[in-house]
Amino acid sequence: MEESSGNKRKIEVCHSPALFEAYYDNSDCTVVVIDIFRATSAMVTAFANGVNSIIPVETLDEARDYQSKGFLAAAERKGEQVEGFELGNSPFHYQNERVKGKDVVLTTTNGTKAIKIAERANHLIIGSFLNITAVVKQIEKLDKDLILLCAGWRDRYNLEDTLFAGAVVSAIEKNLRFGELSDSAISSREMYENAEGDLYKYLENSSHRRRLSRLNLEEDIIFCLQHDIYDNVPYLEDGRLIVEPIGIAAE
Amino acid sequence: MEESSGNKRKIEVCHSPALFEAYYDNSDCTVVVIDIFRATSAMVTAFANGVNSIIPVETLDEARDYQSKGFLAAAERKGEQVEGFELGNSPFHYQNERVKGKDVVLTTTNGTKAIKIAERANHLIIGSFLNITAVVKQIEKLDKDLILLCAGWRDRYNLEDTLFAGAVVSAIEKNLRFGELSDSAISSREMYENAEGDLYKYLENSSHRRRLSRLNLEEDIIFCLQHDIYDNVPYLEDGRLIVEPIGIAAE
Repeated sequence: MEESSGNKRKIEVCHSPALFEAYYDNSDCTVVVIDIFRATSAMVTAFANGVNSIIPVETLDEARDYQSKGFLAAAERKGEQVEGFELGNSPFHYQNERVKGKDVVLTTTNGTKAIKIAERANHLIIGSFLNITAVVKQIEKLDKDLILLCAGWRDRYNLEDTLFAGAVVSAIEKNLRFGELSDSAISSREMYENAEGDLYKYLENSSHRRRLSRLNLEEDIIFCLQHDIYDNVPYLEDGRLIVEPIGIAAE
Repeated sequence: MEESSGNKRKIEVCHSPALFEAYYDNSDCTVVVIDIFRATSAMVTAFANGVNSIIPVETLDEARDYQSKGFLAAAERKGEQVEGFELGNSPFHYQNERVKGKDVVLTTTNGTKAIKIAERANHLIIGSFLNITAVVKQIEKLDKDLILLCAGWRDRYNLEDTLFAGAVVSAIEKNLRFGELSDSAISSREMYENAEGDLYKYLENSSHRRRLSRLNLEEDIIFCLQHDIYDNVPYLEDGRLIVEPIGIAAE
């Protein structure tokens, strides 16, 4: 392992939006934004249910502004839907006919912040366990250095986003085009491989699972830990998330 | 584990100086600064060899300023001793009669930066495998919420500092006064428990071990992974690191 890794694509895990600067080298890369509980899981669910686009914004005021222009408006703070908004960030909110064909504006505690921080990257895509195989395929197709950006919780490290990052590392390193792992990628992969058999149990003591359990959101947790129930890969273009129209929405 | 953790002391691992703000609540806490390869290992070795105090500074200019006032001056950049300075940050530089009784000024790529960022904390102590048992005892004695601050590498996550943090979590959580683990503490402990049998082998692919290997610093790595060869615990007071005069320096 002392040999040069040649021109293999780098694989890095960035554990917090606050560390993005330290990992970001240049715009010619793929960034996967990860907020398993629940923003990115909700986004993928939304597109699978026919949402046309999602505009990620940072503040409630920006979201209200879009709302007044006719957008369906979604907002979450501290794990709960904010009063005055049609949707929160539970995936179940998007399994509904009313979202079909709609443009949605969304602001959440961590996930939308991570998107804003990484929007300079040429390729920003949305990852969750719900669409993990499609994400891995898209990373391979893009064939760029990879940053797996965990949204975390208020800039802190969290377990569920790290596990997803580790799952992607574990899958993508089988592709010989990819191979130079950062320390964070090495440890995330290891954690995923320890947890793989039962993610739900593994997360038993995680801060976020405890937080969501207090809010009676166990069903959301179970939903967000399912693998590959969707195959869309939302990506950012001109400040809004969209999916390829030719995508085949599973289910 | 859904019960309240009562008033147990929190145990948190902060993987980068750039995340310190996210973890730091108030000054009434203990921060352990960790830079295994090699700043904090060198500091502990320095005190074991009779150094009187160490002034951590951020820039080479500041270090030169102290040097001109008669301090023994140590500087490392990119893993190497900087020209014009008496010492670098290899522990072996401090296993030398000439450091005895001296006041040393030190600047390094990551370790001294971490100290400056955390100096607001009431209790800032220096941790390394070389003095780990003494560090754990001191954490228990101080009996405050605990932040294990990894210096990392240019603000990035690194394996060796995380392993040390995990080793401390593993030891300290046996004390019933401590118990509320952050997600980062949970995963650091797990990594340490996986690696415990052979830290050197575990770090084979880590970025920093590869970096130091290229600089022919294998012996430094082996030295820094030894447990409990010293029992001093340097702490910060008025901007300088000192040790209790009554401390029994091992070896």
